[in-house]
Amino acid sequence: MTAPSEMFEHPRVRMKPKSDARAIRRGFPWVYANDIVTDRRTKALLPGALAVLEDEARAPLGLVAVNPASKIMCRMLDRDPAAVVDQAWFAVRLKRALELRERLFDTPFYRLVHAEADGLPGVVIDRFGETCVVQPNAAWAETHLDALAAALAGVTGVTCILKNAGGRTRALEGLDDVSGVLLGSAPDTPVHVPMNGATYMADLTGGQKTGLYFDQRDNHAFAARLAKGARVLDVFSHVGGFGLAALAGGAESALSVDGSGPALALSEAGAIASGVAGKFTTRQGDAFDVLAALGQEGARFDLVICDPPAFAPSKQALDAGLRAYERIARLAAPLVAEGGYLVLCSCSHAADLARFREASLRGIGRAGRSAQLLHTGFAGADHPQLPQLAESGYLKAVFFRL
Amino acid sequence: MTAPSEMFEHPRVRMKPKSDARAIRRGFPWVYANDIVTDRRTKALLPGALAVLEDEARAPLGLVAVNPASKIMCRMLDRDPAAVVDQAWFAVRLKRALELRERLFDTPFYRLVHAEADGLPGVVIDRFGETCVVQPNAAWAETHLDALAAALAGVTGVTCILKNAGGRTRALEGLDDVSGVLLGSAPDTPVHVPMNGATYMADLTGGQKTGLYFDQRDNHAFAARLAKGARVLDVFSHVGGFGLAALAGGAESALSVDGSGPALALSEAGAIASGVAGKFTTRQGDAFDVLAALGQEGARFDLVICDPPAFAPSKQALDAGLRAYERIARLAAPLVAEGGYLVLCSCSHAADLARFREASLRGIGRAGRSAQLLHTGFAGADHPQLPQLAESGYLKAVFFRL
Repeated sequence: MTAPSEMFEHPRVRMKPKSDARAIRRGFPWVYANDIVTDRRTKALLPGALAVLEDEARAPLGLVAVNPASKIMCRMLDRDPAAVVDQAWFAVRLKRALELRERLFDTPFYRLVHAEADGLPGVVIDRFGETCVVQPNAAWAETHLDALAAALAGVTGVTCILKNAGGRTRALEGLDDVSGVLLGSAPDTPVHVPMNGATYMADLTGGQKTGLYFDQRDNHAFAARLAKGARVLDVFSHVGGFGLAALAGGAESALSVDGSGPALALSEAGAIASGVAGKFTTRQGDAFDVLAALGQEGARFDLVICDPPAFAPSKQALDAGLRAYERIARLAAPLVAEGGYLVLCSCSHAADLARFREASLRGIGRAGRSAQLLHTGFAGADHPQLPQLAESGYLKAVFFRL
Repeated sequence: MTAPSEMFEHPRVRMKPKSDARAIRRGFPWVYANDIVTDRRTKALLPGALAVLEDEARAPLGLVAVNPASKIMCRMLDRDPAAVVDQAWFAVRLKRALELRERLFDTPFYRLVHAEADGLPGVVIDRFGETCVVQPNAAWAETHLDALAAALAGVTGVTCILKNAGGRTRALEGLDDVSGVLLGSAPDTPVHVPMNGATYMADLTGGQKTGLYFDQRDNHAFAARLAKGARVLDVFSHVGGFGLAALAGGAESALSVDGSGPALALSEAGAIASGVAGKFTTRQGDAFDVLAALGQEGARFDLVICDPPAFAPSKQALDAGLRAYERIARLAAPLVAEGGYLVLCSCSHAADLARFREASLRGIGRAGRSAQLLHTGFAGADHPQLPQLAESGYLKAVFFRL
């Protein structure tokens, strides 16, 4: 008797007895190494090899990308075990992803592919007009990069495709960190990115790799609704995300605080391009120090935003991270004028919304202030999630009135 | 020795030993009956009486409204135990509430006061241009209604104030259900309400009391972003919330389904006022029946929205409610075209976001479909919450792509 999977040319990997094939059937996209029967053949597979995943009874579950070196040993690529992963296969997924973004946005500046949720596990693609930046953060994407790039050029018509190998997870997949150009020539000046009525500067190739994140766009827009006539403080401002959106929304002034000189320089260039340079100032320094200093100076703002890096990137870092979020809130709250607004953000996977909100409220309370909760925002819809991986959205923005 | 609270003219109510006065100090706005020392004096207080709340050591915590007939025996009105609740006191709170709404919205159509979070416990006020509708859902608000209405007219300049006594919680407070006119004369035709580029009809006084809810405005707007060229199905459509917004956003057609003939008639009038009557149809009937019938007819839509009444209004109703949400999802998913969008809403306090999302995904899975999670929305920012009462936002809208 012939096992069904022998119809296909790909090698086969099998789930262990009592592993959860039902979860895979219901849409969970990963199989961990300890759920796979790792025989000699399996161990010999090269990182990024394609294989047919089978359940313990050898029934095929789909086509997966295998990386024996990774804890996430299999990533589901296609429920059809006979699928052929070529340029046409990529084009189908990219067209579907593009259709959503073209619905959401009037201009071609967005996250085009958000990994698993867009059917391309471990692959992130950001689009900046005529340029796409691809992050192949899983081994299979690296080995299929030519077909991906060809499909991307065909579907979007972009003239430049850059490879960004700076993703933290590449090392877990055994991949190098060598970025490069896959198509065309890299822009040698920052790209002008229109969002929420402002113009941002994205340095896609410069030495500083400051780039630009699209995930906060809706939260920038909500903050801008609160900004009319307001004195705005934007802490951890990066290239000016909240501050420039607030000025475009009618803020009286915006002060951006960041530790990075190059990021602040890009935000200043963005302020000029947005026509709001006269209302925009920057202050370079450690955010905690600057918040404390502003407090001692008796500074007051009508709208304060703190969008720090992930303080709790892992479960191990959760307690320390929550204390850091509390400290941010405690330092920021005294700077908010009576009846003003405080926006606190977290991009920590490990800190779920309830915990992050609690830590923020503890900090606000310790500053002797009380708060109304106005709005809770997450990453924009160009960052879709697989529901099976979406226990807590990684990005949270909580809008308070004090 | 004189206890501090004897300085004030109001009666005093005292928290029991071991009750949680710290929670009150940290901002929790309610004291339950079983945390209050109920002596003869306390029991004799009239519903809606004001009193000074004391902790077990007789230290004053603030001025509260007392209702010996209610499980929520005390509601915090003012942290200042010497506060005087008169027209000027109401005006301060209303001005603060108005300042937020005028920031958020260009036209005067919004929830102006959202109870505890706006400093007026149990009081809801919706504004429809020159008309405000007040819901005094706690006894103290009923006894102070004249001062409230005078302040409301003074702060907003509205020419008509209606009292809506239809709130379900009024019975718990021992209040009647007699609505009326507090100022001016009630509009005798539906009010035209502009939202998201559409015009809605709000019947504030008619026999059917269909009214209009502002809480879904941001979710209507997000759905409209997905609606360009789409065939839209809006189930539990009330006065046309999602459907008319989708048509204003460029939808090809919208079918609204509701059990209420008067609500559908108002949605049809709204479609005419919005200039989209040619693309708008309605179908009266039980939503479950209509969904099943559409499935049997093989109907397909690019965007399907289901915004049912609260299926899980209480903890006791949670399991049955989650099954109803699952059933809605299972019936709606087959109607969504491949690559189309499904929006599922819950206004159940008892079903938190994670549980509601799970139930929805189970239903989608049982329909043989898989989903991307695009966006999660809550009630608009004119429905602020006290963080201490905000464990799970009551309104959730989850946007899937199938």
